[in-house]
Amino acid sequence: MGERLLTADDMEKLAIGATILGTGGGGDPYIGKLMAIQAIEEYGPVRLIDVEDVPDDELVIPTAMMGAPTVMLEKIPNGSELVKAFRAIEDFMGRKAAATISAEAGGLNSTVPVGAAAKLGLPLVDADGMGRAFPEIQMASFSVYGVPATPMVLTDEKGNLSLLQTISNLWTEKLARAATVAMGCSAMITLYPMTGAQVKACAVRGTLSYAIRLGEAVLEARARKEDPVARIVEETRGFRLFKGKIVDVLRRTTAGFARGTIKLEGIDDCKGRTMEIEFQNENLVAKEDGQVVASVPDLITLLEVETGTAITTEGLKYGYRATVIGMPCASVWRTPAGLKVVGPRYFGYDVDYAPIEERMATR
Amino acid sequence: MGERLLTADDMEKLAIGATILGTGGGGDPYIGKLMAIQAIEEYGPVRLIDVEDVPDDELVIPTAMMGAPTVMLEKIPNGSELVKAFRAIEDFMGRKAAATISAEAGGLNSTVPVGAAAKLGLPLVDADGMGRAFPEIQMASFSVYGVPATPMVLTDEKGNLSLLQTISNLWTEKLARAATVAMGCSAMITLYPMTGAQVKACAVRGTLSYAIRLGEAVLEARARKEDPVARIVEETRGFRLFKGKIVDVLRRTTAGFARGTIKLEGIDDCKGRTMEIEFQNENLVAKEDGQVVASVPDLITLLEVETGTAITTEGLKYGYRATVIGMPCASVWRTPAGLKVVGPRYFGYDVDYAPIEERMATR
Repeated sequence: MGERLLTADDMEKLAIGATILGTGGGGDPYIGKLMAIQAIEEYGPVRLIDVEDVPDDELVIPTAMMGAPTVMLEKIPNGSELVKAFRAIEDFMGRKAAATISAEAGGLNSTVPVGAAAKLGLPLVDADGMGRAFPEIQMASFSVYGVPATPMVLTDEKGNLSLLQTISNLWTEKLARAATVAMGCSAMITLYPMTGAQVKACAVRGTLSYAIRLGEAVLEARARKEDPVARIVEETRGFRLFKGKIVDVLRRTTAGFARGTIKLEGIDDCKGRTMEIEFQNENLVAKEDGQVVASVPDLITLLEVETGTAITTEGLKYGYRATVIGMPCASVWRTPAGLKVVGPRYFGYDVDYAPIEERMATR
Repeated sequence: MGERLLTADDMEKLAIGATILGTGGGGDPYIGKLMAIQAIEEYGPVRLIDVEDVPDDELVIPTAMMGAPTVMLEKIPNGSELVKAFRAIEDFMGRKAAATISAEAGGLNSTVPVGAAAKLGLPLVDADGMGRAFPEIQMASFSVYGVPATPMVLTDEKGNLSLLQTISNLWTEKLARAATVAMGCSAMITLYPMTGAQVKACAVRGTLSYAIRLGEAVLEARARKEDPVARIVEETRGFRLFKGKIVDVLRRTTAGFARGTIKLEGIDDCKGRTMEIEFQNENLVAKEDGQVVASVPDLITLLEVETGTAITTEGLKYGYRATVIGMPCASVWRTPAGLKVVGPRYFGYDVDYAPIEERMATR
């Protein structure tokens, strides 16, 4: 329980930590950080409140950015469109929200709600709907627990707005994706309006404070000349999967997604081995020499070998030296209902999910 | 001035006449007729009121179907989704509408508003936004006179709803088209909410009663064993352009449109000559032996040689014997502002528009 004030200083840590949890997606941390800092400087610090402190009958509306991160890099929101999307849901529902919340962890989608909270003068709930990033709207813990994603509102930087009401969260994904593509492959969104009671039942708790702690650990390790990657593995109860050089990135932006394959050739203790990672905005499956070593819903992140900086999908480049780590996902994703929505088979891989701890124990 | 009651009997005439004005688009008359008759039988006859009888400060909301007519044939609306779309605009605007109005002439889009009016218990204004059919949302007289197309609502037969607010009617077309495609290539729509004063300033007047008269003339000619095509030419102040057999139909349904080319080989007095007609839902340009003889915004319609029945784009078949007629468009389309939106150059043809009367005079 309790609350803290998020300051501009926290944004650096949040962006670093959330990008590690973003598993390649969730947006660019640099733009996300700048937007949040600007909003805090203009409107004052943001109250980060505990899930337990949200009154049961109050309304909470998540805020996020949707689209291909490759496009978001070049199409920076003007700042007012998220407030517009938030107000549109409030108007539609005929009631005011008491707080906003993050939909997913990621460099952009963890900081975007901070900026929104500052501008709206509302507290931000310390939680999210994934505990990581996922590419599609229905892939949220809120959805697993039966919360409708609509009314949902999308706005673009030009001033267009689309409000959706759908029969299922899969249809929301379909219609929202079409709208996002038509808006130029990125949009600001508000969706999954929930009561405080629903947030308590559904949200992945503490994601923001966890991401800030993670970012703090990275900065601390760097300052002490310790190995940031080791600290990240420790903080996330994760595993080093591979160390290698990026030798190929197959990339295509289709239907509003950044899809592709990353190929790495081993270096140091991994010399002579290869790794391939498939992604759809987020990293989905990692194979070493053809064998699956980690898969969704567990987290797969590429870190710069020296600095521990997470490499986002849009930042992948030939020649980067990266340590690939695997991290256990939030428990909701390991349930049958969770795996149905975000397991490897949903993404088209003929792979049974096994928790990363089990895969590593039998390695 | 004045009003009349539209009965189920009128629907047969309306469907016939409006399909002639639909220039290949505007939807299938059979389904449109059935839907309207069913609604009238269930909810009672519809009052068709004159434009002048709409109070200046009352709200009028057009109702229509959007998408590829080829798809509409197989995806029949369940009837309630148009009422839902209508109520959604009313709720959004916080006021009730006093009437509905047709957006375009066509077998479906002239009768759909009759069904909507019956179900809503509202009068239908005797006018439309085109005096014909056009493939895109911004191609309405309302738009030429500066009425925003949004708030616009799209609904599908599954129960999904999308509400749009845009910065321009071109953006409305873009976003609504994407939503329509995502909904399965057809949707029920409400858009261009207007005051009575705006309807008076912008609408193409009398389109429904004109279509009914036209349908009546066709039925009369058939009953008297006279030539229905001659009656249509007379009623529409139109011209016979060609008589031929359809020898080829190139057809592709792309981006929510039915596009293609119709090739005809001359018969009877046109023997030895050929005609090609390009269409995008509606017939756009007719060329005889390579020379343009008619183009948008004037109306180009294929009629069955014997019955005078208009052939819609989705009904085009090899071997049909058709008389192609050209008809002058509503005066709004011949203004510079009108031609900018629906002239041949907008559709990508390197052709200067000339009124069909002038083309025929110099033929």
